[in-house]
Amino acid sequence: MGEKLALGLDLGGTNITGALATSEGKIAAITRRKTQASRGSGPVIEDMAEMVEHLIASQGISRDDVIGLGVGAPGPLSHRDGIIFKMANLPGWTNVRLRRALLERTGLPTILDNDANVAAFGEFWMGAGKGVRQMVALTLGTGIGSGVIIDGEILRGHFENAAELGHLIVHARGRPCTCGQRGCLEQYASAANLTRHCVELIREGRESSLSAILEKGGELGAKEVVEAAKEGDPLAAEVWDEACYFLAIGCINVQHSFNPQMLVLSGGMSKAGDFLLSRVRRYAREHGWKLCDDQPEISISVLGDDAGVLGAAGIAWAARNSGVFG
Amino acid sequence: MGEKLALGLDLGGTNITGALATSEGKIAAITRRKTQASRGSGPVIEDMAEMVEHLIASQGISRDDVIGLGVGAPGPLSHRDGIIFKMANLPGWTNVRLRRALLERTGLPTILDNDANVAAFGEFWMGAGKGVRQMVALTLGTGIGSGVIIDGEILRGHFENAAELGHLIVHARGRPCTCGQRGCLEQYASAANLTRHCVELIREGRESSLSAILEKGGELGAKEVVEAAKEGDPLAAEVWDEACYFLAIGCINVQHSFNPQMLVLSGGMSKAGDFLLSRVRRYAREHGWKLCDDQPEISISVLGDDAGVLGAAGIAWAARNSGVFG
Repeated sequence: MGEKLALGLDLGGTNITGALATSEGKIAAITRRKTQASRGSGPVIEDMAEMVEHLIASQGISRDDVIGLGVGAPGPLSHRDGIIFKMANLPGWTNVRLRRALLERTGLPTILDNDANVAAFGEFWMGAGKGVRQMVALTLGTGIGSGVIIDGEILRGHFENAAELGHLIVHARGRPCTCGQRGCLEQYASAANLTRHCVELIREGRESSLSAILEKGGELGAKEVVEAAKEGDPLAAEVWDEACYFLAIGCINVQHSFNPQMLVLSGGMSKAGDFLLSRVRRYAREHGWKLCDDQPEISISVLGDDAGVLGAAGIAWAARNSGVFG
Repeated sequence: MGEKLALGLDLGGTNITGALATSEGKIAAITRRKTQASRGSGPVIEDMAEMVEHLIASQGISRDDVIGLGVGAPGPLSHRDGIIFKMANLPGWTNVRLRRALLERTGLPTILDNDANVAAFGEFWMGAGKGVRQMVALTLGTGIGSGVIIDGEILRGHFENAAELGHLIVHARGRPCTCGQRGCLEQYASAANLTRHCVELIREGRESSLSAILEKGGELGAKEVVEAAKEGDPLAAEVWDEACYFLAIGCINVQHSFNPQMLVLSGGMSKAGDFLLSRVRRYAREHGWKLCDDQPEISISVLGDDAGVLGAAGIAWAARNSGVFG
């Protein structure tokens, strides 16, 4: 009998990623396929179960060598009950008992959590936060997702909605957010809002090297804004600077809420690397309090896109070690 | 041998309060004296030790009937090391090993935590949050103190500075705070800033029934502002409304960070009762997100000024029950 492995599945709107990982976080096998989520939950769950079988077969191991299955999925969902309440803009995904369905199809003890929590757990377990006990991760994408690790465990909260840090209000009466609030952090510091803000200013008549991309009907992403800012385009530089400033305000609020040792930035915008990090760190120092030095170390994700699937295997190991899997 | 009791001491800038409490949170004896903190730490520690002896003697019990001593004190301090680093504006309180000093003088196992954490623990244990496992308390005084209870335990954070929620930035680039930041919650929603804002507006020439108090050289407190607002004074009503709005923004940020079941408001401003509560609840609904209904129940402190001393006895019981006292 070989080394025991955990199975992790990362269910995204675009891809499903599956992996087998050891208790030390070494990936033994990894595989990916398109989600095609518009088919509804049934076919996608069949694909997920098939991926489990395929991964086990590919390693020539038996089901008994697999300690369990961890699943990260978009929410809102209930970790406690193993249910996905809905998936944004997708029909056929209302109140899906995903945990039970996978348990029945695979025979493996299964645990479900939301994708931001699972990605944070991945960074905590094997990424930027390895060795750290108190960690917060912010994923800078369309919005800002987040996960909070306290004493090595995911913070879930009474209503299982803890760590929705993209919706911290950092500018009272500020920009309206899709959530119904005004002044949410993600309206100032997510990748999508970064580019949207550039487009708005160009439409208002501001000059920018980015307008050439728009005129050609091209896609404007965080990458293009970062490149233009680096090349000295004043509009791109201004918008980028503003996003970094607000991200620093978000980091300061994390500092005063959870007081973690480390804060990990991931997602599209984090690919800017030091161009993001040095500025956010500087603004967090400049605009943070002066009473004592308790700022978390601000870092960039180490695992990148693998944080989700590795974190999914990680929560399976954690469930096994804490006796949740019996 | 009678019922076992825990000793709690609440060290404040003005008073020291001591109490003996049962494991069910019943206060068997309570006593209070002036702190006279300007004497320095030595004499104050002697007074605290004497208070312990006095409380034990007053009940006709022996030291063996007391399971330990819990102490709440102003910070910054280290719970882990039992040290007060300093007390605001008071000399002779630098790096005081309070836990060890009290342990040596009283012979009782001793535990130290900051006053806001201890007061939150009191409300959680025996007050508004009784029966709740996830709770946040905001104390509305000179600033805004806070404590966060997660799964029945005080959240401390890596640097032992978690839950400094008065310094959440809710209005980027807003009013300067004594801490060095701008736009801190407490600059908009603490009792002291409520009255300060009234005074500023009156000095700028705004009319208000409150100016009579100032002209007579009287003290303007949250109580007077609340009374004037209730009587329809436009300036007082406007400032009160603004404070309630920002407090609601603070509650929303607590919701998205910790997602607790309950949020308890205490301190001077909370004495306004329903005049505060109904407005904060309404604004939290109006300005909170519409994605799901996960707002904590917002409540007023039940224990009032006794939250600190009861919480101090409570952390002693918790330390005993979790084996910290050996």
